[in-house]
Amino acid sequence: ARIVTLPGDGVGPEVTAAAVAVLDAVAEHFGHEFSYEEHLIGGCAIDATGEPLPAASLEACKSADAVLLGAVGGPKWSDPHAPVRPEQGLLALRAALGVYANLRPLQVHPALAALSPLKNEKLKHVDVLFVRELTGGAYFGAKTRTTDTATDECKYTVAEVERVTRRAFELARGRRHKVTSVDKANVLETSRLWRSTVQRVAADYPDVKLEHQLVDSMAMLLLTQPSHYDVVVTENLFGDILTDEAAALAGSLGLLPSASLGEGKAGLYEPIHGSAPDIAGKGVANPVGAILSAAMLLRHSLGLEHEAVAIEAAVADVLERGPHTRDIGGQAGTDAVRDAVLVAFE
Amino acid sequence: ARIVTLPGDGVGPEVTAAAVAVLDAVAEHFGHEFSYEEHLIGGCAIDATGEPLPAASLEACKSADAVLLGAVGGPKWSDPHAPVRPEQGLLALRAALGVYANLRPLQVHPALAALSPLKNEKLKHVDVLFVRELTGGAYFGAKTRTTDTATDECKYTVAEVERVTRRAFELARGRRHKVTSVDKANVLETSRLWRSTVQRVAADYPDVKLEHQLVDSMAMLLLTQPSHYDVVVTENLFGDILTDEAAALAGSLGLLPSASLGEGKAGLYEPIHGSAPDIAGKGVANPVGAILSAAMLLRHSLGLEHEAVAIEAAVADVLERGPHTRDIGGQAGTDAVRDAVLVAFE
Ligand SMILES: CC(C)[C@H](C(=O)O)[C@@H](O)C(=O)O
Ligand SMILES: CC(C)[C@H](C(=O)O)[C@@H](O)C(=O)O
Repeated sequence: ARIVTLPGDGVGPEVTAAAVAVLDAVAEHFGHEFSYEEHLIGGCAIDATGEPLPAASLEACKSADAVLLGAVGGPKWSDPHAPVRPEQGLLALRAALGVYANLRPLQVHPALAALSPLKNEKLKHVDVLFVRELTGGAYFGAKTRTTDTATDECKYTVAEVERVTRRAFELARGRRHKVTSVDKANVLETSRLWRSTVQRVAADYPDVKLEHQLVDSMAMLLLTQPSHYDVVVTENLFGDILTDEAAALAGSLGLLPSASLGEGKAGLYEPIHGSAPDIAGKGVANPVGAILSAAMLLRHSLGLEHEAVAIEAAVADVLERGPHTRDIGGQAGTDAVRDAVLVAFE
Repeated sequence: ARIVTLPGDGVGPEVTAAAVAVLDAVAEHFGHEFSYEEHLIGGCAIDATGEPLPAASLEACKSADAVLLGAVGGPKWSDPHAPVRPEQGLLALRAALGVYANLRPLQVHPALAALSPLKNEKLKHVDVLFVRELTGGAYFGAKTRTTDTATDECKYTVAEVERVTRRAFELARGRRHKVTSVDKANVLETSRLWRSTVQRVAADYPDVKLEHQLVDSMAMLLLTQPSHYDVVVTENLFGDILTDEAAALAGSLGLLPSASLGEGKAGLYEPIHGSAPDIAGKGVANPVGAILSAAMLLRHSLGLEHEAVAIEAAVADVLERGPHTRDIGGQAGTDAVRDAVLVAFE
């Protein structure tokens, strides 16, 4: 299998290297062959080429079996009014790969419950899979700007809503058979289209229970009854906000992976944390989010479920027994955590 | 002073009556005269007149000194595809009154910390005032719908951003001199206009510290460091989501008030809870959110700061010692809580 790596900025290269080491060990252990090709994206790409997603990077990603990304951005490129910005590379890549379904699983490891801002009793049995629409909505709609006025258009077609919704229902079938669709149908036209499309699609999945929730209520319910949710599907911007809110429950952003999937194209895998410029280059970043992203890569792009589960089990073991990086209350560095995971594949 | 009451639907009439009883006691105690005029809004207005905001209601509100609203909506009118819906009345009222600044204070009463999903240590010193832009953005932008496609336009002018921002900075001067502005400037054009306008306005308030935060990060930071925030200002839809998220921290929605203010026009005051159809008519709704909204009415529309503080102190006392309604772990009814607050004004 051909994997493109896009280490990106800040701690991106460190955590990506750790994830690749784990993929290598898995390949060796289970007898697979993975090849890697590294490319530029984000701030480092702007510095080297003037563009946040150089053509060479995009072409490599398009023909790869999967893409493993670190993180993009940093203080050097953080002016939101600059004409060229790191996150444009990420948005362009999502669009070009057509990865419309962003999967963000959330579980709270019992050993780490003390780190969560939420009370322990709320965290029991929390196991949510967010499915965020990733290539539509206000992110990709028309924008205008004059001295006096700015506009953003949020646009959705039935086809866009239908494909991501079907993905959510399919995923629910492999889980607890429940889908919560989040919108703002009492105010937004796109949300009314969203809701009626989800409702129609649901008829094809009579074995899956569907409920609708307004985004403002959902922001509250994620805190008051997080264990109620199984699969949560929502549009791009609501998903951006709700998944970050939910991520806070896990105790550290450094723990969480994501997968962005399209239709028979290369999947894009990245930890949900950012480039963390304050700790970049120090060897202390938590590699768990990146390593679990590699597990999702094996599952969703390479069909290697057994290998994915093996990585997840190894990570769970390390979270249980240590070593732990600083973000989760330990003293260990990135390499020590990587090595502890690697033990499972010796 | 002329106060228009809009009890609305569900528990709205019950909690509004309790708040009016407190206003009456304050008037008697401090020697003021308040007159009340009751009008229809929401589902009950649709049933009676076919419209969610009848002209008579709107005219009365426009010429009042202040408007006290209960709640709108309920299962009977909950189809988001219906041509006439209760929340349209609320949105039309906000627009017609020009109440562009929605103030939502959040404090967590120590006696109720056990009810919060957040750990106790996170709740210490939480005292946030959200200032949500209320008459612009995607709520009031152009919408289109065909069989296949829907759009919502989010639009902001510099003037719209500037007036709500100035209100936030002014309010920060009476508090801890800190403003956090929330946007999504790395993606949205309206957010870039928002951010540069806030930045410019801030120059007129050198005594107030300003920070910018992206909405996704903010959804997380509200949980990990809630006591960090003083005044938080943001656009309409982000404010809708973040204030509901924050409200979950208080332990019950029934506790929280809001004020919506414009330029020299009647302010609109309402508890942030909804119509709570499941408990409507049972006399068990928590009247605290409505009573604290009445206190905000005295402060912001009638200039009666001393009286507002007296209500807030009386409520704090009842939260400390009981009686408590069911939502906060007690057994008391609406009237018992009202009466306990009234004791302070005998
Ligand atoms: C970097 C930014 C553009 C991005 C987004 O808003 O999608 C990030 O927050 C994410 O969630 O992956
Ligand atoms: C009822 C609804 C239209 C309203 C809103 O979204 O503004 C409510 O959620 C609120 O926050 O007051």
